Amino acid sequence: MEYHDQLGLSRERFVDLAEQFHDDSYHGRAYRRLPDYRRSVEKGTVLVAGTVVRGFPKIPRCLVLDEGIPQQFDREIAVEEKLNGYNVRVARIEGDILAFTRSGIVCPFTTHKVRTLVDCEQFFDQHPDRMLCGEMIGPETPYTTADCYDVDSIAFRAFDIQDRVSGASLPVEERRATCEDLGVPQVDLFGIYEPAEAVEATPEIVDGLDDRGREGIVMKTVDGSQQLKYTTSAANQGDLAYAFSLPFDYGRAFAFRRLIREGFQSVEFADSEAERRQRARGVGESLLVSMTDAIEAVGDGERLGERHTVRAEPRVVDALLEHLRDQGLSLDIERDRRVEGQRVVTFAKQVQRSTDKIDSYLDGTIVKE
Amino acid sequence: MEYHDQLGLSRERFVDLAEQFHDDSYHGRAYRRLPDYRRSVEKGTVLVAGTVVRGFPKIPRCLVLDEGIPQQFDREIAVEEKLNGYNVRVARIEGDILAFTRSGIVCPFTTHKVRTLVDCEQFFDQHPDRMLCGEMIGPETPYTTADCYDVDSIAFRAFDIQDRVSGASLPVEERRATCEDLGVPQVDLFGIYEPAEAVEATPEIVDGLDDRGREGIVMKTVDGSQQLKYTTSAANQGDLAYAFSLPFDYGRAFAFRRLIREGFQSVEFADSEAERRQRARGVGESLLVSMTDAIEAVGDGERLGERHTVRAEPRVVDALLEHLRDQGLSLDIERDRRVEGQRVVTFAKQVQRSTDKIDSYLDGTIVKE
Repeated sequence: MEYHDQLGLSRERFVDLAEQFHDDSYHGRAYRRLPDYRRSVEKGTVLVAGTVVRGFPKIPRCLVLDEGIPQQFDREIAVEEKLNGYNVRVARIEGDILAFTRSGIVCPFTTHKVRTLVDCEQFFDQHPDRMLCGEMIGPETPYTTADCYDVDSIAFRAFDIQDRVSGASLPVEERRATCEDLGVPQVDLFGIYEPAEAVEATPEIVDGLDDRGREGIVMKTVDGSQQLKYTTSAANQGDLAYAFSLPFDYGRAFAFRRLIREGFQSVEFADSEAERRQRARGVGESLLVSMTDAIEAVGDGERLGERHTVRAEPRVVDALLEHLRDQGLSLDIERDRRVEGQRVVTFAKQVQRSTDKIDSYLDGTIVKE
Repeated sequence: MEYHDQLGLSRERFVDLAEQFHDDSYHGRAYRRLPDYRRSVEKGTVLVAGTVVRGFPKIPRCLVLDEGIPQQFDREIAVEEKLNGYNVRVARIEGDILAFTRSGIVCPFTTHKVRTLVDCEQFFDQHPDRMLCGEMIGPETPYTTADCYDVDSIAFRAFDIQDRVSGASLPVEERRATCEDLGVPQVDLFGIYEPAEAVEATPEIVDGLDDRGREGIVMKTVDGSQQLKYTTSAANQGDLAYAFSLPFDYGRAFAFRRLIREGFQSVEFADSEAERRQRARGVGESLLVSMTDAIEAVGDGERLGERHTVRAEPRVVDALLEHLRDQGLSLDIERDRRVEGQRVVTFAKQVQRSTDKIDSYLDGTIVKE
């Protein structure tokens, strides 16, 4: 079947779309990937060896559970944990297990880790035309750093099994049983609810996750066809702190959306006066303290960056660093050591704009606004 | 002299620019005004009865006094108070005293108030080709509401006397003496300093203003040719609260800039740990509490708006309300009474976007972001 048939597009529409794909390769295997969302095709969709690897869909969000859940769902939904890591799709292409990040890039580090963390061959022997979708979490990843999980370095948690070409999901209970049977680690399930029950149950689930510094929940119809997400205050405020640690690199829109989420959650969760002031203090400190830390760091002559630590066999770390540099990132290697045969590297992805802007304002640059 | 000569432009450049002017009129007198900043001509510049009324220039700002002052100034500067009201230029055109707002609109209310608050005829008899620039402040104005001044209703404070056509300022001391002599109320002067002295003196001045909930300072060379402004934390946080009381109407950029100002001020003013947390709490409450108030108000079926109270002779209030409606504003009259022959009206300028967006999220609308 040709690509356009697999994507469900006419030949003409595919010809237009094809120009948007970027050429890339991994270990000599050429592939094409779609770096942005398009009207009919998900971001991160890949064309490789004659097959489509469908991009993972953007999950819609509600700001108010009470109204959002019944509006989005008219039947039973599963409520599972949303993890704070990075999205990965694992597929077997002509015998090779490959791990694709959200934007469709084959990441050599993730590919290696997934192969060691999951019995992929067994999975794909049983599900040759499917892909395993999940989150890479833990303190030692090249893309995220959340340390709220009981994970020493890096771990994989499955949250979907999809048809590789169409993106159609396995029903939630079948997917969970499959992962269970094959020993594939997976996200927590909080329960299966009618929409009205979910309205009752979810605020408490979210509060419990918030207390543990966790990210949030994903709700989906038990057939896996429709999804909705909702995040904790801890996640909103953590994102705000992160954004304002690099204030001129993260968009105003990024911060604004998270502030709005806090506002609606404070109203829906019926914060008491004291709780609202507590939340406000958290919001203010997320913004101000991380920003002043950044300003002071630049004032002390430091360069700002996104700091990550990774741990793997030396050749895998080499491949990762080369891969990141190939993406155009400038890396400062801050620490590089061997621990039990593994190479453990702490590096910072340089972030130029915030460093330069802060430096220039500290030098007295005038703002014309 | 033709307009292009008065503006210092070639005839050709003026022809291009002329298309950007909007036609307007006041009491049968036609005028044209420039609603936006252009490369060579200030926003709010007006062409009327053969004369230019130059727009008030945008005053640049520094984020760090210590470096910003010596970078902007190499000679003595006057430090005066920056008031939280609205900018007005008063000129006498063919015998008529007219008050122009920042964007060059003749406001009937402001025109009336200025005539009663200042002995304009005496001023223009002595300065026929100049304009009197100042701030309208107080709790009862149609455009701003700051109530941190010892003003019952509305007052005028002069901060510049400029050549009407060129915009050239009188030297600060001459301007202050002129206002003093003519009984024109004016902004406070904190002192005249060499730049290095100003670096020492201004943080304390700003702290004192902050304690009183005031806006900030304007520094200018004593010849009036170069200016620089700096605002208090109270002003930054007040603006944040205002922006998030109408969260979808005020730009993300508006809030972002004020957050950045707080960050740099916290670092420059060497906040202690406790002061920084106090500032952070203020920032967080400015954002969250005003936003949750807005969400709850919409949840209760209210429409959001910018609320103002004005007090004047009935015909002046009539003219103002008609004028605002002519600008395309929808007004809700919330209170309308007579007090000692004056009409006192409280009205809200309807703000559609925030009301509609909040309403829709409360109804469970899904966010795809």
